[in-house]
Amino acid sequence: MDRDLKSRFATIVGERHALDQAADIAPYIEDTRGRWNGTSSLVLRPGSVAEVSAILALATQTRTPVIPQGGNTGLVGAGLPWLEGGGREVILSLGRMNRVLDVDGDTNTMVVEAGCVLETIQKAAEEADRLFPLSLGSQGSCQIGGNISSNAGGTAVLAYGNTRDLIMGLEAVLPSGAVWNGLSRLRKDNTGYDLKNLLVGAEGTLGVVTKAVLKLFPRPRGREVAYVAVQSPNHALKLLNRAKATVGNGLTGFEFMAAMAMEFTLKHTQGVRRPVETVSPWYVLVEISSGRCAQDARASMEAILQEAFEADLLVDATIAQSAAQQDAFWKLREDMSWAQKPEGASIKHDISVPVGALPAFIEKADKAVLTIVPEARIVNFGHMGDGNLHYNISQPVGWEREQFFAHEEAIHEAVYDLVIAMEGSISAEHGVGQMKRDKLATIKDPTALSMMRSIKDALDPAGIMNPGKVLQFEQTP
Amino acid sequence: MDRDLKSRFATIVGERHALDQAADIAPYIEDTRGRWNGTSSLVLRPGSVAEVSAILALATQTRTPVIPQGGNTGLVGAGLPWLEGGGREVILSLGRMNRVLDVDGDTNTMVVEAGCVLETIQKAAEEADRLFPLSLGSQGSCQIGGNISSNAGGTAVLAYGNTRDLIMGLEAVLPSGAVWNGLSRLRKDNTGYDLKNLLVGAEGTLGVVTKAVLKLFPRPRGREVAYVAVQSPNHALKLLNRAKATVGNGLTGFEFMAAMAMEFTLKHTQGVRRPVETVSPWYVLVEISSGRCAQDARASMEAILQEAFEADLLVDATIAQSAAQQDAFWKLREDMSWAQKPEGASIKHDISVPVGALPAFIEKADKAVLTIVPEARIVNFGHMGDGNLHYNISQPVGWEREQFFAHEEAIHEAVYDLVIAMEGSISAEHGVGQMKRDKLATIKDPTALSMMRSIKDALDPAGIMNPGKVLQFEQTP
Repeated sequence: MDRDLKSRFATIVGERHALDQAADIAPYIEDTRGRWNGTSSLVLRPGSVAEVSAILALATQTRTPVIPQGGNTGLVGAGLPWLEGGGREVILSLGRMNRVLDVDGDTNTMVVEAGCVLETIQKAAEEADRLFPLSLGSQGSCQIGGNISSNAGGTAVLAYGNTRDLIMGLEAVLPSGAVWNGLSRLRKDNTGYDLKNLLVGAEGTLGVVTKAVLKLFPRPRGREVAYVAVQSPNHALKLLNRAKATVGNGLTGFEFMAAMAMEFTLKHTQGVRRPVETVSPWYVLVEISSGRCAQDARASMEAILQEAFEADLLVDATIAQSAAQQDAFWKLREDMSWAQKPEGASIKHDISVPVGALPAFIEKADKAVLTIVPEARIVNFGHMGDGNLHYNISQPVGWEREQFFAHEEAIHEAVYDLVIAMEGSISAEHGVGQMKRDKLATIKDPTALSMMRSIKDALDPAGIMNPGKVLQFEQTP
Repeated sequence: MDRDLKSRFATIVGERHALDQAADIAPYIEDTRGRWNGTSSLVLRPGSVAEVSAILALATQTRTPVIPQGGNTGLVGAGLPWLEGGGREVILSLGRMNRVLDVDGDTNTMVVEAGCVLETIQKAAEEADRLFPLSLGSQGSCQIGGNISSNAGGTAVLAYGNTRDLIMGLEAVLPSGAVWNGLSRLRKDNTGYDLKNLLVGAEGTLGVVTKAVLKLFPRPRGREVAYVAVQSPNHALKLLNRAKATVGNGLTGFEFMAAMAMEFTLKHTQGVRRPVETVSPWYVLVEISSGRCAQDARASMEAILQEAFEADLLVDATIAQSAAQQDAFWKLREDMSWAQKPEGASIKHDISVPVGALPAFIEKADKAVLTIVPEARIVNFGHMGDGNLHYNISQPVGWEREQFFAHEEAIHEAVYDLVIAMEGSISAEHGVGQMKRDKLATIKDPTALSMMRSIKDALDPAGIMNPGKVLQFEQTP
């Protein structure tokens, strides 16, 4: 990058917050999965919305591409330089804008800056005796701006919705530098196009989210967690529908997992024990919450399991007997992604299909994968209530990594073909980023792609916002 | 309109479905409120998405403005010709596309055409033992396409959300004639911009919604309805928060009303009786539902009212003792808008503020209105849980209509100024249409308006879609 331009950017944030040395830049271009090796010659760390505005205005004026970045925990390379970028991209890190500006228990709202770490937000809500339900593996380091831009999912979506549903209002800076004040606390406002939902999930390609109004919820007074052994995905689905019909949004967790996922985790994670004695090909973690009292949650859980047992929907079930055991039950589920690592190479998919189609998807996908690699180990787990599976494949025992990865494209294709045939999504909760951009271009409804391109060009005519992410790169900024 | 062009449009839908006689057109340009007196020389009633596509393609090619219309029950003139339109606009009525295409209890989804009447949809859901919760005064004639395009609200928003939250996917025709197939049944799909939410609430200015995938819910097994007398809006707010904390989304109704609203309805509606004996300045209708059983709903209702009574949040309460009494309690609320009519002229507002700000809003708005017309009768009622009031003013007894309407602008200004100062919305659930377009242009965040304009121009470059609605008219098509 031109030295004069670099200095103009640095002046906006102050020299201390403009990083141009390789060692300082390294953490901002590091990808834990090792897939995105793009580079950048400048990282800017603004401290205010005014600075973000000045950066984008200058970027538009000089056609300098900008990559907004939160906690750099994304899984599809949306916040990292793109491979073909040639180092021209400036990384705009929101990490210094990390204040909780307001927590209001009366109106159940919180106002935060985009760089707030999710866990900080959860704790601030808890201190006000409220719940901010968004809950993810990376919550200790991911930032709310990134959660918003990727419309993050997680384990609480079933009862509380995606990040999109937890946001009441936004402030964002557009590529021109104009600041949009949409910090609404309104539950109802029919005065024009839904700009909030346009920015949520746009992966930083339309503007930079700088603040958000979050929805808070009452903290449940009672909670019960159970592990249930079931005979098949279809039995699990029936149990899900019965539980939802009984407690509605009181069903705050319904995580489904194949036996292999549980075995890996029992083997590699400390402090977890087999929750149900009966060995079964499939398990479900069920969580019920009640706003009334602990006894109410218990009564609901027992009624649901009893009815399900009588209807032959489950084989065995254990209700956690203490808060510690509840946590251990959840840990067993949460460590499943991590527990695949010691078992060697893995090929992962973050897919969704209509909830009712999950059993058919699993049957067909398993068959397709095992046709390609008969000794593959299918480590399938996820958010059944959302139709969202982390459909992962671990390498056969004794194989070399490369031997397994030689089948990666074939496995991806088989899984994605099935997802598309079942009108599902190839990215349920992780987003598109760089990783699925080209695939998306081949499978998404062409009218949808053309609407997206029109909107992108209208709001970012200079093409500076996170180019090459979500949509294919068309213009040279 | 040019005879040749008229004939080209008529050929698309067939002569029978192209209305060009004044008597045939009359019902489509009729406005029950008598405010919008625009005319049209052609009404087209397509029978398929292919016909809608051909109409819009021809309209774009010939720069002919098109007004999509559902049941013509809107309250802001969004589906009617605009006053300055000069009769050039073609009305595109969706009423013939009224099939329920699929009801799937297993996946809790329904697929419908845009012209389906809301009540037909509610009944189809009920026949499958499911609930489609959207519920409005005009449900016997409004169409789902109109509900979607206006993001309709109603009495079930508290537990189930606005129309936006009840839609999983859409099919829509863009101004170019291109058909977007977004008929998703996915609860999670992070593959690009949220086009669904962009079309929901766009009031037909970006394209024509032709089909939708709707979310269904389990039908509650238990329901309780109570009328509660409270001392003040602040007491009602505290009762709301307590009820929400206790039963969460089991709180399916929380309608707030001033004594005047109840008195008018008791006086003018048949078949309703005073629900609570204690005379009070404010009342609340509370509805609790349970997915578990009737006893569960009863226990929750009794616990909430008991706790509230002990905390001095309520003065008196009656729980309905039969389904018939429950219906009578709701009828008393639902007839409130209608019951204003026999009392003479009224000036109405559909406003929202942050839920916690409602008591302060009411206090200040009452004071402001009574300063302008000291004998005015304030008929205030609405969806307190959503921060949404129908803040209506009836004329003083014995006044002439014109005498009262002479104060209309002053009253609007006082109310809206307060709404804006409290960061509220001047249209919580009815939309913008023609009615609030010019007001919106003066009060909405300028960056938001400019984003809306950019999106409009990008998706409708010829400016044919419902011109002069939501956004001010800028181009002559």
